[in-house]
Amino acid sequence: MKKTAHNGILNGLMRHPVCTSTIPTSPCADNTINPIRGLVDNLVINPNPDKPFLRLSIGDPSVFGNFDPPPQVIKAVADNLTTSCYGYVPAHGLVSTRSAIAKYYNTASSPLTSNDVFVTSGCSDALRIAMDCLGSEKRNILLPKPGFSLYQTIAGNRGIPVKFYDLDPENNWSIDLNQLESLIDENTAAILVTNPSNPCGSAFSVQHQRDILAVAEKHGLPLIADEIYQDMVYDGESKSFGELSEHVPVLSCCGLAKRWLIPGWRVGWLIAHDRHNRLSKVRDGLTKLCQVIIGANVLIQGAVPQILETVPQSFYDDTLKRLKSASEVVYSELKDCPQLRPFKPQGAMYMMVQLKIDQFEDIGDDMEFVEKLITEQSVFPLPANIFGIPNYVRLMLTVPEDILREACQRIVEFCDQHKAAVPRKISRIEVAP
Amino acid sequence: MKKTAHNGILNGLMRHPVCTSTIPTSPCADNTINPIRGLVDNLVINPNPDKPFLRLSIGDPSVFGNFDPPPQVIKAVADNLTTSCYGYVPAHGLVSTRSAIAKYYNTASSPLTSNDVFVTSGCSDALRIAMDCLGSEKRNILLPKPGFSLYQTIAGNRGIPVKFYDLDPENNWSIDLNQLESLIDENTAAILVTNPSNPCGSAFSVQHQRDILAVAEKHGLPLIADEIYQDMVYDGESKSFGELSEHVPVLSCCGLAKRWLIPGWRVGWLIAHDRHNRLSKVRDGLTKLCQVIIGANVLIQGAVPQILETVPQSFYDDTLKRLKSASEVVYSELKDCPQLRPFKPQGAMYMMVQLKIDQFEDIGDDMEFVEKLITEQSVFPLPANIFGIPNYVRLMLTVPEDILREACQRIVEFCDQHKAAVPRKISRIEVAP
Ligand SMILES: Cc1ncc(COP(=O)(O)O)c(C=O)c1O
Ligand SMILES: Cc1ncc(COP(=O)(O)O)c(C=O)c1O
Repeated sequence: MKKTAHNGILNGLMRHPVCTSTIPTSPCADNTINPIRGLVDNLVINPNPDKPFLRLSIGDPSVFGNFDPPPQVIKAVADNLTTSCYGYVPAHGLVSTRSAIAKYYNTASSPLTSNDVFVTSGCSDALRIAMDCLGSEKRNILLPKPGFSLYQTIAGNRGIPVKFYDLDPENNWSIDLNQLESLIDENTAAILVTNPSNPCGSAFSVQHQRDILAVAEKHGLPLIADEIYQDMVYDGESKSFGELSEHVPVLSCCGLAKRWLIPGWRVGWLIAHDRHNRLSKVRDGLTKLCQVIIGANVLIQGAVPQILETVPQSFYDDTLKRLKSASEVVYSELKDCPQLRPFKPQGAMYMMVQLKIDQFEDIGDDMEFVEKLITEQSVFPLPANIFGIPNYVRLMLTVPEDILREACQRIVEFCDQHKAAVPRKISRIEVAP
Repeated sequence: MKKTAHNGILNGLMRHPVCTSTIPTSPCADNTINPIRGLVDNLVINPNPDKPFLRLSIGDPSVFGNFDPPPQVIKAVADNLTTSCYGYVPAHGLVSTRSAIAKYYNTASSPLTSNDVFVTSGCSDALRIAMDCLGSEKRNILLPKPGFSLYQTIAGNRGIPVKFYDLDPENNWSIDLNQLESLIDENTAAILVTNPSNPCGSAFSVQHQRDILAVAEKHGLPLIADEIYQDMVYDGESKSFGELSEHVPVLSCCGLAKRWLIPGWRVGWLIAHDRHNRLSKVRDGLTKLCQVIIGANVLIQGAVPQILETVPQSFYDDTLKRLKSASEVVYSELKDCPQLRPFKPQGAMYMMVQLKIDQFEDIGDDMEFVEKLITEQSVFPLPANIFGIPNYVRLMLTVPEDILREACQRIVEFCDQHKAAVPRKISRIEVAP
């Protein structure tokens, strides 16, 4: 034992004052910012104690118990629980799971094998490996606005510069392609698209998807497609970017969270659509990036093949029917309110409502709208400021219809109580001297 | 629809050649290197078809089926499966889970509350948030050598410079504290320690732990303590660094993988031991870093309180008894082999065996030893090169004793077949002209 040497150190120490300074954090920690947190933390939430608090804010279908996962999901996991699958598996996923996902999403135009699939700890983790693999401090990524806030969290964590392209509410939340193209520079690494969209509840037309791919193709860029709401389109055609792409490499991020209604169980996947073998380095990078946290939990990922095989089409159809019906309830309740403009969703589980802010007497923006709505009516939609667009609120649609109706009626009452006697802009003109 | 604008882009595109270049990857992806992969990928693995292949290489207790998780773990998860816990929870963990972990590890000297606990996707993810929160391109972290290779993977991913301090095999794999101290500079962010150790199977004495803390204290540095093998010490006292620390902030990383034998189920935790409130910024950073992948899966983390409450002490005792017994089998089988020097482990699930390389006729290093051992005897220990130390192999101890014995006997036979007629160094002297 080198006791003497140790004692030397200890003796040296005795003369040292105890260090009491705060341990500093890294730029990475400092810049890992979730924009939702900042806004929600600053929101004054004082529900009216006389009215039950109705939260339409959280993007979690499990909150109200009316959108439970199908029994086949529970059975698949329960079956897996007893088949002794406790150990480590490859960090990018079990071959059986990757094969099942490849088979499920395989199309004639985009044939897939297990080598194209990376199993991840939720769609978030798929987005992490995609963005970390392509972006860097020197290589920017284009993001939608309004858009899901996690993209900024990941970009901040990695120091990836981002630029925002606009989704146009007047044009079914489609992308202004000229503006998108104008943002591309020689350091652009990828375009990230979300379809169907959180927060907009919109779904691109297939033609618009082809046009987006054409822009990417023209500039030789890959697409990161957040398709966690894939196949959650209420009516009409629904195609993935991977299926439609002829030349553009697509990293499609998806998972069990939304369509299978188990967000908390944290299994997602990334599918590399790569018909011209342009992703050889990227595949390697994605595999390595999976190793940082050694992948998704085996109990759930091991159940994926059985889940994909046994959940009946009727379950998916029923979910969409009920989401659509919920959206119709909200639309019909809000459409005649002069201060509001609800947007009919086409997919996912959200609905955007525009606030005609000049029609309110005493409400300056969506944040103030939501704060006062909580205080007076105990109703909590999410201010869409959080997603980068002002004066909209996002309503969650996985809410029982009676609660949705009640919430809407309170919102309408609230709008009426806060309406401007005459619209503020017009009044200014009228009272002009 | 802005059809004309889109068409403009599409027309422009038609004149463009199709881009076929390989999509480049980020430095982050390129530098996320698992040293095990590089070495194992280069290892020639051609087992002898006449002998059953005995893998003693993988650090996964579930491989042979003789170290299954306790029934209480399965029951806790099964119970949780039916209680409708499907949704998102705070990214750093359920309060109930964090409270249960705080209570379990609470000691008089280091009182803990749920605010000190961060639930993560395995111990790996706890190590990720700890290293990402403290280290950066400008702030280095000190790592053990030999040591678990994931630390380098995480450091490479984040561009954190690392320096290695030595564990001394002649001194129970304890740290050369003078050398450790000599590595500390003004940009050192933290010292990472692993106790008990993978790959060494060693456990520090409590006095050595205090001496390490004294070095950290002298330099005002926090400790990242990888304590995934905490409480897995075969005999004698076992203390965590958090319990022993009076002034040094300790980020202790642990999880269900090893002691509860469910590595694939990916739930771990980080405990911030912070008696002098020096981690206020770090706690904030850790919370934010959890949000990148929205935390650990709820099905397993929700079962943690019941697991901690119901698994009986006899289960832990039995595991240790069996690991110790396995280590005694290996030790007694190998101790008389002139080419080998087995090290008796004190904890964890591994055993290091030194190769007296000059006593072999035709084996230059541990890599060659392992390749030839696989080819001739179908036995696969891990070359400890992977952990940064040459001419050792690491044997896994969670292997049924008959297989262990068989493997050891083949190793001894192999050594005998490859022994130098006279030890090579001595022979050189003797044949000198
Ligand atoms: C567009 C979008 N992408 C990704 C996610 C995260 O999915 P997961 O829970 O699988 O990480 C969400 C969750 O709300 C989302 O809305
Ligand atoms: C020292 C050490 N730390 C961390 C880990 C990873 O633990 P987990 O599976 O919980 O991520 C291991 C796994 O072998 C290990 O040996």
